[in-house]
Amino acid sequence: MEHALREYRLLIDAVDQRGLILKVAEVLFKHNINIDRNSEYVDEDSGKFFMRSVISGDLDTNKTVEELKVILPRNSHVKIKENKKKDMVILATKESHCLGDILIKYQSDELDANILAVISNYENLSKLVRKFDIPYHHISHEGLNRIEHELRITKVIKSYSPELIILAKYMRILTQSFVQEFKQQVINIHHSFLPAFIGANPYKQAHERGVKIIGATAHYVTDDLDEGPIIAQDVVGVDHNYSWRDMQKSGRDMEKVVLSRAIALALEDKIFVHGNKTVIL
Amino acid sequence: MEHALREYRLLIDAVDQRGLILKVAEVLFKHNINIDRNSEYVDEDSGKFFMRSVISGDLDTNKTVEELKVILPRNSHVKIKENKKKDMVILATKESHCLGDILIKYQSDELDANILAVISNYENLSKLVRKFDIPYHHISHEGLNRIEHELRITKVIKSYSPELIILAKYMRILTQSFVQEFKQQVINIHHSFLPAFIGANPYKQAHERGVKIIGATAHYVTDDLDEGPIIAQDVVGVDHNYSWRDMQKSGRDMEKVVLSRAIALALEDKIFVHGNKTVIL
Amino acid sequence: MEHALREYRLLIDAVDQRGLILKVAEVLFKHNINIDRNSEYVDEDSGKFFMRSVISGDLDTNKTVEELKVILPRNSHVKIKENKKKDMVILATKESHCLGDILIKYQSDELDANILAVISNYENLSKLVRKFDIPYHHISHEGLNRIEHELRITKVIKSYSPELIILAKYMRILTQSFVQEFKQQVINIHHSFLPAFIGANPYKQAHERGVKIIGATAHYVTDDLDEGPIIAQDVVGVDHNYSWRDMQKSGRDMEKVVLSRAIALALEDKIFVHGNKTVIL
Amino acid sequence: MEHALREYRLLIDAVDQRGLILKVAEVLFKHNINIDRNSEYVDEDSGKFFMRSVISGDLDTNKTVEELKVILPRNSHVKIKENKKKDMVILATKESHCLGDILIKYQSDELDANILAVISNYENLSKLVRKFDIPYHHISHEGLNRIEHELRITKVIKSYSPELIILAKYMRILTQSFVQEFKQQVINIHHSFLPAFIGANPYKQAHERGVKIIGATAHYVTDDLDEGPIIAQDVVGVDHNYSWRDMQKSGRDMEKVVLSRAIALALEDKIFVHGNKTVIL
Repeated sequence: MEHALREYRLLIDAVDQRGLILKVAEVLFKHNINIDRNSEYVDEDSGKFFMRSVISGDLDTNKTVEELKVILPRNSHVKIKENKKKDMVILATKESHCLGDILIKYQSDELDANILAVISNYENLSKLVRKFDIPYHHISHEGLNRIEHELRITKVIKSYSPELIILAKYMRILTQSFVQEFKQQVINIHHSFLPAFIGANPYKQAHERGVKIIGATAHYVTDDLDEGPIIAQDVVGVDHNYSWRDMQKSGRDMEKVVLSRAIALALEDKIFVHGNKTVIL
Repeated sequence: MEHALREYRLLIDAVDQRGLILKVAEVLFKHNINIDRNSEYVDEDSGKFFMRSVISGDLDTNKTVEELKVILPRNSHVKIKENKKKDMVILATKESHCLGDILIKYQSDELDANILAVISNYENLSKLVRKFDIPYHHISHEGLNRIEHELRITKVIKSYSPELIILAKYMRILTQSFVQEFKQQVINIHHSFLPAFIGANPYKQAHERGVKIIGATAHYVTDDLDEGPIIAQDVVGVDHNYSWRDMQKSGRDMEKVVLSRAIALALEDKIFVHGNKTVIL
Repeated sequence: MEHALREYRLLIDAVDQRGLILKVAEVLFKHNINIDRNSEYVDEDSGKFFMRSVISGDLDTNKTVEELKVILPRNSHVKIKENKKKDMVILATKESHCLGDILIKYQSDELDANILAVISNYENLSKLVRKFDIPYHHISHEGLNRIEHELRITKVIKSYSPELIILAKYMRILTQSFVQEFKQQVINIHHSFLPAFIGANPYKQAHERGVKIIGATAHYVTDDLDEGPIIAQDVVGVDHNYSWRDMQKSGRDMEKVVLSRAIALALEDKIFVHGNKTVIL
Repeated sequence: MEHALREYRLLIDAVDQRGLILKVAEVLFKHNINIDRNSEYVDEDSGKFFMRSVISGDLDTNKTVEELKVILPRNSHVKIKENKKKDMVILATKESHCLGDILIKYQSDELDANILAVISNYENLSKLVRKFDIPYHHISHEGLNRIEHELRITKVIKSYSPELIILAKYMRILTQSFVQEFKQQVINIHHSFLPAFIGANPYKQAHERGVKIIGATAHYVTDDLDEGPIIAQDVVGVDHNYSWRDMQKSGRDMEKVVLSRAIALALEDKIFVHGNKTVIL
């Protein structure tokens, strides 16, 4: 019994209908598949149904997906993913706090992922990354236009076929074609409590506005810069004593924690994208 | 069609078994009952299954409960409650912040409850309560022992047959027999981040310990004082500038917010008691 | 000794200079005035010096202010305010949560203020306010243009000469002339984490954007709507289960707590306005 | 002018007296020393005065300290420390999250400290530490009693003469003599919201108690285990879905952030110990 009692995640995204849970449960029951954990959500405005089940059993995933598609409404999305490490590529620029946090988790085996490579448009992080025996690709943007630079990056990313691409403070704007290429695979950390302080240097903006709380936002990357579906957010209190540099210092700890939460949710297949929002199950 | 499409809450607390969701869904489907919202939780350690569904339809609740009991494991708890205002009695002592918050919500119709009466061992809150046309029972503890005093209170409570009893800063210890009488009906707000600072004057204790955060805890009342299942908690930052009176001042706003959240959860039938914990669905 | 050891607050807002603390301390020492608490802040960017001291003694406030002005840089602002209840007028529209919270604190003597009157453009809150024996002025905006309506309100406010005007969910835009008339006297509670979701119905905006945290902001009112100096902010977590109504419900508890904190700071004379920011000492 | 305009921190801990600020300001003024930032705190219960000033100038620190001692009450503590990197030794056991966080900050020059060595009673962290070119001392406790083991550690620590000793999840109990030897130099991170869940495996305890929030506490180490003056605390929400392992996972991010805040405060000489509390200026 090669794959007996392996654990899988069943992910359904469908138009809501009476009896959906019953129909899904019937299929699983018929195949002797256990439902170990189950979460559903129905969005009443859009009439959409989302379901994430942790299931286990002796399972032919393709066949089960096909059977589920038969009983579900047309155009439903059904996936069954085995519970195993996901391949990941990280993009960074110069700052090390988010990247470093991921590396430390990785080396102590706290991250359910394989980090295949780190790509940066600068050289300075290579020393850090190489300590962890991870390939570092320095792809400078100098002398290249945005499209040329991105094509080089895209080529390297594709050579690794990652499931997840993490922008760990990658400070370059991505083109629409990049975003389309890696739809719902790219997670960014934005150093503000979106939608406040979209754009350049949010800490300076926050300082100028005199806010009493600063935040960080992890989100999927879409065409509109800083406008993708929000996965996780957190905040920390500041006061008039904080220069914008102090805010940045304080904010960095939050950035890495928020990004880390978003990555964990993605690695557990807990995030559904629903229009411009996320449903976390 | 007198009760067509009324909304109900189906609450199940059972020993976990393969196929439970399927079985429940089958019964509901057979009776043409809609599942509008559904949450389950399986506690793997104890093998317990909890389920809360918002259902609607033309429903004979007793009959449906009986049918569900047949297909569920023995000793399962099944309830179907109509979505309607619950009757509530409030106990207080001298402080008005939690009581006042409930009254303000009540008068603006933000509380899904009928406040039948307020009972206090002091007189001072009567002026406030009477502004809101709610009966006020002043039952002084003076000259009475704990049991005598409590008997008088119990008698008044029973005369109202409330579903929920809120201790809005009621500062008297309750006897085991009171707790047994109103099991899982009594919600208390404790002015500390339990289990820290159990006992008298938690703010003084917190001040002496020099904590940087203070908290409040709403919990069901059980035999062990301050030891019942926790429903909601929250905290607020403090620093060395705070006297214990300042902590109390700051804490009071948190107390009322935390109690208010716990009451809302209870009114929506979202709280399951699981040993000494709660499951919030 | 009629006013021996009365407590005062010395408030200085000046251009920074070497030796300022020394000079101020010398004046106070000479007059036998105790410094019970002292906080300063120097903003290095603007070269501004802020100081708040709790002082006590047998004090001629006018004379002391004059002496301090002599030793301080030109155009310094110096105030000495006695520690006593401030007069306050509240403006509201239809919602009762913020207003109610203030009233409950007021009746239990937790507010260091005299509430002289409540003014609203609707009638519905009068029942609540009258319970607390506070004059209620219903000044409808119907049939009046903005300026006419505001003039009526201004007239009533002036008749009370309040030190503080609290907008407890007053949902009308104020004109520049109103703002100028009551400069640094008007505190508003905005139901979002400013600068996010400026404008109408922030909870709907937040819901549409799919944020995971919502907030509230208390600020001084200036010419630019929702752009005045921020006094206090707080946030609460939400998730995909929240409708915008749920966000509003959850947010209201936060609004009243944040407004309450801002009022407390104003009543203690702890807020300095510094350009478009606040310094809280 | 070799040391012109160097920046120093003046730290005073004295019995409160009228005119203290004046006297200190006079001494500084006389020597042409600038006060760039200034914070004081008077604890009214104990009658203690604390002051931290950032000062700059052409300064003979010993002489200035002596002059200040003359004008301050007897037994006052006065220190003037130059603003420069502090020497630090880290103790750890097996977990890498706190240690790793410090190392990442260190290598990107975000830490105002020199990490002279890491000491652990296990071998497993050596690979990580050596990546950062920092000496690693594996001092196993096996076959040694507590005192013998600690003596070996003490000897190594002393060989580095660090100003600060960070317990980055060092899971051994320290003896009274160790604590006395390095008084107010040792900062520990405790994986609970102290004083809740003192002792072994706080996450298991928290899970069993069913709390809705977990926390972390950074504190100075004193004779009483987990009872030293608290420097920083923070919390994160959890729910019934969290196993104690999940709580631990979630808690670790908080532990490192809280420890990191405490270290930053210590490196900036902002922490005064006041009995069993801290005053942060």
